[in-house]
Amino acid sequence: MSDTSPAFRFAVNVTPKPGILDPQGKAVERSLPHLGVTGVTGVRVGRRVELTVSAADEAAARAIVDHLAGELLSNPLMEQFSVESLGAAEAPATAGVGG
Amino acid sequence: MSDTSPAFRFAVNVTPKPGILDPQGKAVERSLPHLGVTGVTGVRVGRRVELTVSAADEAAARAIVDHLAGELLSNPLMEQFSVESLGAAEAPATAGVGG
Repeated sequence: MSDTSPAFRFAVNVTPKPGILDPQGKAVERSLPHLGVTGVTGVRVGRRVELTVSAADEAAARAIVDHLAGELLSNPLMEQFSVESLGAAEAPATAGVGG
Repeated sequence: MSDTSPAFRFAVNVTPKPGILDPQGKAVERSLPHLGVTGVTGVRVGRRVELTVSAADEAAARAIVDHLAGELLSNPLMEQFSVESLGAAEAPATAGVGG
């Protein structure tokens, strides 16, 4: 079935929730003046996960991504996420060896 | 001067270049069947850095972000980046203690 399903590419953007300490972002922010860059504030470092989902239609694919983003790709206590559609994807080469 | 400059918020999306091995993405991909999720392929894990830049106008702010993205936030040998405008930002609270 998945051979004929269309595929959609998404990005999941995961960032620290407002108010949650972000040491990595602070480290970047503090390093900037040493590089001669000023006027940069509010640096927050998160993750971006891009993935292709085969499903019956884009709504079904998005539901899978929403589920993954909340359950696997982010920590709901400390992080928030947003899902971004990157459009239709080429058929993934998921066929096994010798397929 | 920076007190009166407008501020703009951007996101820098950093992802592994095509063809570059992404063990973290592969690990996510391999864990999905154990969670009952099928049909997900091409998982790539990167970083997303959000930041606010005070500058004369948006073009000047974007130039600063482009510079940072290429020099500090990504490794040009293994990673590619894109810059996304998140619009005008609130004036940053950069005034020091007692300001």
